[in-house]
Amino acid sequence: MYELKGINEECGIFGVWGHEKASELTYIALHSLQHRGQNGAGIVASNGEFLFGARGLGLLNEALSTEQVKSLKPFPNAIGHVRYATKTSSELANVQPFLFKSYSGDLGLAHNGNFTNAIHLRKALESEGSIFQTSSDIEVFAHLLKRSKSRNKKGKIKSALRQIKGAYAFAILHEDSLTVALDDHGVRPLMLGKIDGCWCVASETCAFSAIGAEYIRDLEPGELITISDEGIEYDRHSFVENPSMCSMEYIYFARADSEFRHHSTYRIRKALGEALSEEMNVDADIVIGVPDSSLAAARGYANKSGIPHEAGLLKNRYVGRTFITPGQEARERAVRMKLSPVRDIVEGKKIIVIDDSIVRGTTSKYIVKALRKAGAKEVHMGVSSPPLKHPCFYGIDVSTHAEIIASKKTTEEIRDEIGADSLTYLSVGKMHEVYHSFGSRGQCDACFTGNYPIEVVDNVLPQVKEQKSKGV
Amino acid sequence: MYELKGINEECGIFGVWGHEKASELTYIALHSLQHRGQNGAGIVASNGEFLFGARGLGLLNEALSTEQVKSLKPFPNAIGHVRYATKTSSELANVQPFLFKSYSGDLGLAHNGNFTNAIHLRKALESEGSIFQTSSDIEVFAHLLKRSKSRNKKGKIKSALRQIKGAYAFAILHEDSLTVALDDHGVRPLMLGKIDGCWCVASETCAFSAIGAEYIRDLEPGELITISDEGIEYDRHSFVENPSMCSMEYIYFARADSEFRHHSTYRIRKALGEALSEEMNVDADIVIGVPDSSLAAARGYANKSGIPHEAGLLKNRYVGRTFITPGQEARERAVRMKLSPVRDIVEGKKIIVIDDSIVRGTTSKYIVKALRKAGAKEVHMGVSSPPLKHPCFYGIDVSTHAEIIASKKTTEEIRDEIGADSLTYLSVGKMHEVYHSFGSRGQCDACFTGNYPIEVVDNVLPQVKEQKSKGV
Amino acid sequence: MYELKGINEECGIFGVWGHEKASELTYIALHSLQHRGQNGAGIVASNGEFLFGARGLGLLNEALSTEQVKSLKPFPNAIGHVRYATKTSSELANVQPFLFKSYSGDLGLAHNGNFTNAIHLRKALESEGSIFQTSSDIEVFAHLLKRSKSRNKKGKIKSALRQIKGAYAFAILHEDSLTVALDDHGVRPLMLGKIDGCWCVASETCAFSAIGAEYIRDLEPGELITISDEGIEYDRHSFVENPSMCSMEYIYFARADSEFRHHSTYRIRKALGEALSEEMNVDADIVIGVPDSSLAAARGYANKSGIPHEAGLLKNRYVGRTFITPGQEARERAVRMKLSPVRDIVEGKKIIVIDDSIVRGTTSKYIVKALRKAGAKEVHMGVSSPPLKHPCFYGIDVSTHAEIIASKKTTEEIRDEIGADSLTYLSVGKMHEVYHSFGSRGQCDACFTGNYPIEVVDNVLPQVKEQKSKGV
Amino acid sequence: MYELKGINEECGIFGVWGHEKASELTYIALHSLQHRGQNGAGIVASNGEFLFGARGLGLLNEALSTEQVKSLKPFPNAIGHVRYATKTSSELANVQPFLFKSYSGDLGLAHNGNFTNAIHLRKALESEGSIFQTSSDIEVFAHLLKRSKSRNKKGKIKSALRQIKGAYAFAILHEDSLTVALDDHGVRPLMLGKIDGCWCVASETCAFSAIGAEYIRDLEPGELITISDEGIEYDRHSFVENPSMCSMEYIYFARADSEFRHHSTYRIRKALGEALSEEMNVDADIVIGVPDSSLAAARGYANKSGIPHEAGLLKNRYVGRTFITPGQEARERAVRMKLSPVRDIVEGKKIIVIDDSIVRGTTSKYIVKALRKAGAKEVHMGVSSPPLKHPCFYGIDVSTHAEIIASKKTTEEIRDEIGADSLTYLSVGKMHEVYHSFGSRGQCDACFTGNYPIEVVDNVLPQVKEQKSKGV
Repeated sequence: MYELKGINEECGIFGVWGHEKASELTYIALHSLQHRGQNGAGIVASNGEFLFGARGLGLLNEALSTEQVKSLKPFPNAIGHVRYATKTSSELANVQPFLFKSYSGDLGLAHNGNFTNAIHLRKALESEGSIFQTSSDIEVFAHLLKRSKSRNKKGKIKSALRQIKGAYAFAILHEDSLTVALDDHGVRPLMLGKIDGCWCVASETCAFSAIGAEYIRDLEPGELITISDEGIEYDRHSFVENPSMCSMEYIYFARADSEFRHHSTYRIRKALGEALSEEMNVDADIVIGVPDSSLAAARGYANKSGIPHEAGLLKNRYVGRTFITPGQEARERAVRMKLSPVRDIVEGKKIIVIDDSIVRGTTSKYIVKALRKAGAKEVHMGVSSPPLKHPCFYGIDVSTHAEIIASKKTTEEIRDEIGADSLTYLSVGKMHEVYHSFGSRGQCDACFTGNYPIEVVDNVLPQVKEQKSKGV
Repeated sequence: MYELKGINEECGIFGVWGHEKASELTYIALHSLQHRGQNGAGIVASNGEFLFGARGLGLLNEALSTEQVKSLKPFPNAIGHVRYATKTSSELANVQPFLFKSYSGDLGLAHNGNFTNAIHLRKALESEGSIFQTSSDIEVFAHLLKRSKSRNKKGKIKSALRQIKGAYAFAILHEDSLTVALDDHGVRPLMLGKIDGCWCVASETCAFSAIGAEYIRDLEPGELITISDEGIEYDRHSFVENPSMCSMEYIYFARADSEFRHHSTYRIRKALGEALSEEMNVDADIVIGVPDSSLAAARGYANKSGIPHEAGLLKNRYVGRTFITPGQEARERAVRMKLSPVRDIVEGKKIIVIDDSIVRGTTSKYIVKALRKAGAKEVHMGVSSPPLKHPCFYGIDVSTHAEIIASKKTTEEIRDEIGADSLTYLSVGKMHEVYHSFGSRGQCDACFTGNYPIEVVDNVLPQVKEQKSKGV
Repeated sequence: MYELKGINEECGIFGVWGHEKASELTYIALHSLQHRGQNGAGIVASNGEFLFGARGLGLLNEALSTEQVKSLKPFPNAIGHVRYATKTSSELANVQPFLFKSYSGDLGLAHNGNFTNAIHLRKALESEGSIFQTSSDIEVFAHLLKRSKSRNKKGKIKSALRQIKGAYAFAILHEDSLTVALDDHGVRPLMLGKIDGCWCVASETCAFSAIGAEYIRDLEPGELITISDEGIEYDRHSFVENPSMCSMEYIYFARADSEFRHHSTYRIRKALGEALSEEMNVDADIVIGVPDSSLAAARGYANKSGIPHEAGLLKNRYVGRTFITPGQEARERAVRMKLSPVRDIVEGKKIIVIDDSIVRGTTSKYIVKALRKAGAKEVHMGVSSPPLKHPCFYGIDVSTHAEIIASKKTTEEIRDEIGADSLTYLSVGKMHEVYHSFGSRGQCDACFTGNYPIEVVDNVLPQVKEQKSKGV
Repeated sequence: MYELKGINEECGIFGVWGHEKASELTYIALHSLQHRGQNGAGIVASNGEFLFGARGLGLLNEALSTEQVKSLKPFPNAIGHVRYATKTSSELANVQPFLFKSYSGDLGLAHNGNFTNAIHLRKALESEGSIFQTSSDIEVFAHLLKRSKSRNKKGKIKSALRQIKGAYAFAILHEDSLTVALDDHGVRPLMLGKIDGCWCVASETCAFSAIGAEYIRDLEPGELITISDEGIEYDRHSFVENPSMCSMEYIYFARADSEFRHHSTYRIRKALGEALSEEMNVDADIVIGVPDSSLAAARGYANKSGIPHEAGLLKNRYVGRTFITPGQEARERAVRMKLSPVRDIVEGKKIIVIDDSIVRGTTSKYIVKALRKAGAKEVHMGVSSPPLKHPCFYGIDVSTHAEIIASKKTTEEIRDEIGADSLTYLSVGKMHEVYHSFGSRGQCDACFTGNYPIEVVDNVLPQVKEQKSKGV
């Protein structure tokens, strides 16, 4: 579905300290985080003295060979990363974790998010003699860290973090410690877990399930945690706290079995579907969800409305190539290869289709058409989130402004474009209600409302930033 | 899931005559049939005079390059094949369709199924001077065809088919015609469709949906159809008719949106789940299905029993590598990478898990354990088919007898092995009832009952046959 | 140089019986025969009961993995093959050795040469029910073998060989014997050797040097030798004998350290150069050879004439890609990447350049121009063989008739075309004198004279034959 | 031969300014310099405003795709690099040219050589906040350049160069100029050329021949040249001058057609062979050279001594895999695959074998043995350079001290080890005489004498340096 949506998560991270199978656990954890990044992966591990690493392009099993993972076997401390890449940044040098070798101690860095003052920082650093070899925010952070005047590692990290604006979850590996930190809005998720008595961290709790770790708790905005052979040390790098967790993590990105504050995404999505059913007054015979990410919302809708839930749309598990032949007919054939209706379920029915979001509207248009062709009498589209209208500067790659249908069209115009009998979005208020009911202390809704909680200093989209500083 | 099950469909075929985009349609159709074979794919096309082909190992997009498919663009007639391979037969020479060049006319052959007298025929042919370069049944058929004394193509085909015992669906491409045939028990499926006025055939109707063709009807057991520029000609190669369609196609193999006699597999599976709920008297809080193939049965069970249906188990869409480290712990980690429970759905609940079949029992065992670990109070396993006990000689690769748990253990012993609170299989009688309600005139149940409807002359499993005649 | 010449040897074969390192020796021997075929390689080995094989496309190290060669380690009997492929036949199915599995005994086949009645035989076999899957002569031979009425293996082989016209060296592996045979004109070379008490055969003696075997003798035209655990058995399949060894093997193809009747190709080529110096009366300062194949002839010319021999032309050992940009300038840049003059050797000198043959003339033209640009005062071209005018039907791929410069132009016209001050070819008579002085009992000179010693039944060039019967 | 020798050149560079086919010329030039580095290659090109690059691992045609080279087509200014890598540094991040993107202007860097104070500089830079991502000297230089206080580019370059000790030839590409520089001992070669009115530079003149450029002159030690749209500007970064050109470039590395001060390496090597014949008083029937690098010296020896020169040893052009089976026999088989004697040339003869150098002695040992086995009566080894005894710190990778046979053994002991009848090395004095006769103003002979002309500050071998700072 990822490729159809045009909206992508930009990373997943994992770290573990002091476990005899650190690199193996990291590999398994990264596998479970694969949905957060499919363009590159890496692991950096430490034996307590030096750091060693391996990284590559593509899906995890393409990026890292068994031999590479085995070569890191003796190291009990490790961080790992899976990466989503925009076209302008798809090269090995940008794949994380970064590993900086130094006579005064090695450094491994992985992060999830986006700095909103990276260009500003970069220019300042360059004017002081810093050299950049990649377009990654990580490299900016490494320079800040290196140039800090603090005497100890933690002081350097805090001083570096304080200069950064934006959204980030960081994993910082030194030979003798693993430090993790979250920006003071807590936009990106980071979870704390424990396995066989050893501390671990991950972007999502599904990584803990995959390795058999216990999920302890979510990191707090502004929190900074240091894990070492001495144990765990809780601290903060910022005492301001404006909780603004990314709404899209709940709606679309996180795996359904991942938990936030001990509530599964599945349950949250179901609740979004229930909420939508209260705002969407449509009579129908069946409710169907767009597989896979919208099935929970559809189930919630069905439960609440009492309309039966059916699997009226199926997704082909195999990825196909599209033949670029001219004409509308060929483009439709391509999307038909991915989603297909079950005729004898939809034939003659009034249908409510639940999707978690609409970006460009092309898939919705196909779905409506396909369901009608399969005999549906009516097709009503329900979206379990508000209209997506604004780009994200905090680590989500949304197709450019021009391509986001709701940034240019009213709901009625969109309904007309996709050909549905009706179209209902969840309201922003209702959405926040749902989040609060699951214990959220504040969510970022910038992509729906345009209210950006963190200052956007550089004022350029991430893609553009990368293009500007494209390396070899 | 395929790799976990240990039970595999052995092929998918497609053919189209007289369409200007024949090779492109064939590629798209094969993509929709990918679940029927992931180890090789090929296309043979005809320009009315000569045949040309392309084939390769692996998934469709690995097996055939865009260039190869484009090179076949000018040819209006084509057949295609996706192939499942046992370890002993995984080489290019065995990938179908086969293409035989001859000064008296080229021949393209693709089939789905297994001959039960292949070794017998092979020895006879060898003693008459035939040479074999592969371990494929197709090559045996080609020799029978070539050696037939009939004057015309159809006569040769009929004479060759009459010498074969076993299960098969055939697509035979000559420069001037496409002939398709089904064995007289109709074990394997073959469907007739129409696109833009041109006839096409496919193992499943999902191929018709993918290309936008109309699904006309299922081929009858013993039927032989010839498609050419003159139109379509219906005929029979056998007048005996013992309809024995493979039950496993309904239970597990076919895509849920594929139809048989105009009923979707989804509906049939749902009905199997409903039937199971009548035979399984268990009180529970929720019903969950093992994704993806058992979700329809779970829904049927839930509807009939009134117990809520929830997505308590999730499947990771990415394929991972397993680290072979010794010990039970490592093996469990591997399966944990593929299936994970949603904790806050299952916690504290009495659960009914619906699976469509149990082969070795290892996955079931993991599922029960994982659900209990996630907090399930009770785990009852319901299987929407009878106990699988016997190997298949008609084109399904089941793990060897020794590995099929139900061939050695009673239901109670299996329940004990997998650790469930109860275990209920659907009865054979009930299963047939369901099939009849969807218009079936007879189903093969050999893997459940050991009653083989077609004589097994060679009396060796397909894997063994291939090993005996392994080529370069 | 091969890629520049436009003239290619079509194969190399090797076989060994009863050696504990048979597959390893075969691999090493094929490596030394790599100059005889760079498009595919394979090994078939026998454990005395069954045959097993491995083959692939490309150079030896691409075609066969270490794992594949190791998998054949336990087998004491093996044959191997390296293959040159024309564009129309470059597919895996045509790579030798062929392995035919049969319930009455397996068969491995490798050959070097070309049948001149292959199409004739093929049509006859097809009319009797034979099926062909490749465009290889080998498959024709396999059918002849299979259909023979003789009671024993040797009888079958003789009967099959007697139906073939053309040039061939055969290695035939049965589970209990290795049979080798040469056509009754002895066009292609085949050598008998011994290693650690075991018999072996090879297209060239350089294979014996590579594995440390002793070179015993050349096979005779019409000879048939059977090697088994019982020892060696010398026989004949034909009692006609018209020795017509390929002249091009001496002039260009064979490795310089390979021996024929215990004389090295190096010595024969040197003698050709000496002979040329007697026929070419040119005064010059230095003699230079075109590397690598013409260095021996140049040395012979220098010795005989008393003119100093210098390395005035160097060859780049690395293979480069050519940029296809329009214009003469770009084409010249490409060839300049392969051959370069040593300026301070050639500057101000009258030069005799010795080449072993001229096919299209393009390289000669470049050489003359490059030497002049580097300051040569005069450039005289001497060719140590007669003008190449006619295509070969016996296993050499020469560019089509139209491209062979001497088939359309006189020597004076060629001289003018390549821009040399003079051009002298060795005469046919003088060439034969040289061969006789090295014990030759008769050489094929068809490519120079058009006198084809073996009937060309099909009357089509090998490339065309392959195109006609191109398979998947 | 490179892989046999255990002594490797560490790089080749090329640059061109203002030519419409800059990237294409660079590619062709790098192809001709391939012998100077086979482990990686890259090109960085400039459009006058920004720099863009492409690089990869392996031989040129593996490292750079046609698409990559084409993508640089519009840029009229380019530098390129081929790289040799030790095992510890074989990763993409180390492949040159390096490209540093900066808001104040991009920078492309390529070099040939080795800094002898790199670790010293690195530690100092790190203590001032510099971050290193690779183990390359280039990165050290980039930091020096960036941190220089000079106002203009040339001032920065001079200031950076003055801090470096060691041997280097540099190509520095800014958007508006190409600067090249040689260390003040001129250890590594760098040549100035001209093509179609545009200036170009290359490690060897063979690159000029390949692209059709005119060879102007060698750069002087300490020279610094800036090429821009304004023309060429000659300058110096050092006024000290201690010409110490690497002797091994003449003896072994440079291509035979490359020229130094307008004398070809071929001529210099021939003169070394002539000189050796004066010092080696051995009576023999023939002189043979070890192909390819020693053929010129052998010819010189033969001319001077009057003993005939023959091609008694042949080299297989194809690279083979070695089977690692235990025992001396297997190791010998491996080397036999690469070099083979021509039996009827060497049989019964007293032979003088000329090699240009002996590193470990293993190849020499094999050669003597193989010649004796082929029937040689006597084998005398002549080496056209003095005994190689000391490691190189200036850009040549010699096997570690322990492996250099002459560092531990006397000439007589080496003779005994390799089994020759006599062994004669060229004397150091005689070698210098030859160089002076070709206009050399001073040669480095540190590997023969241990007199290192440039201070070795870090006192570690290059391999060790790289290991210390190994990156991801």
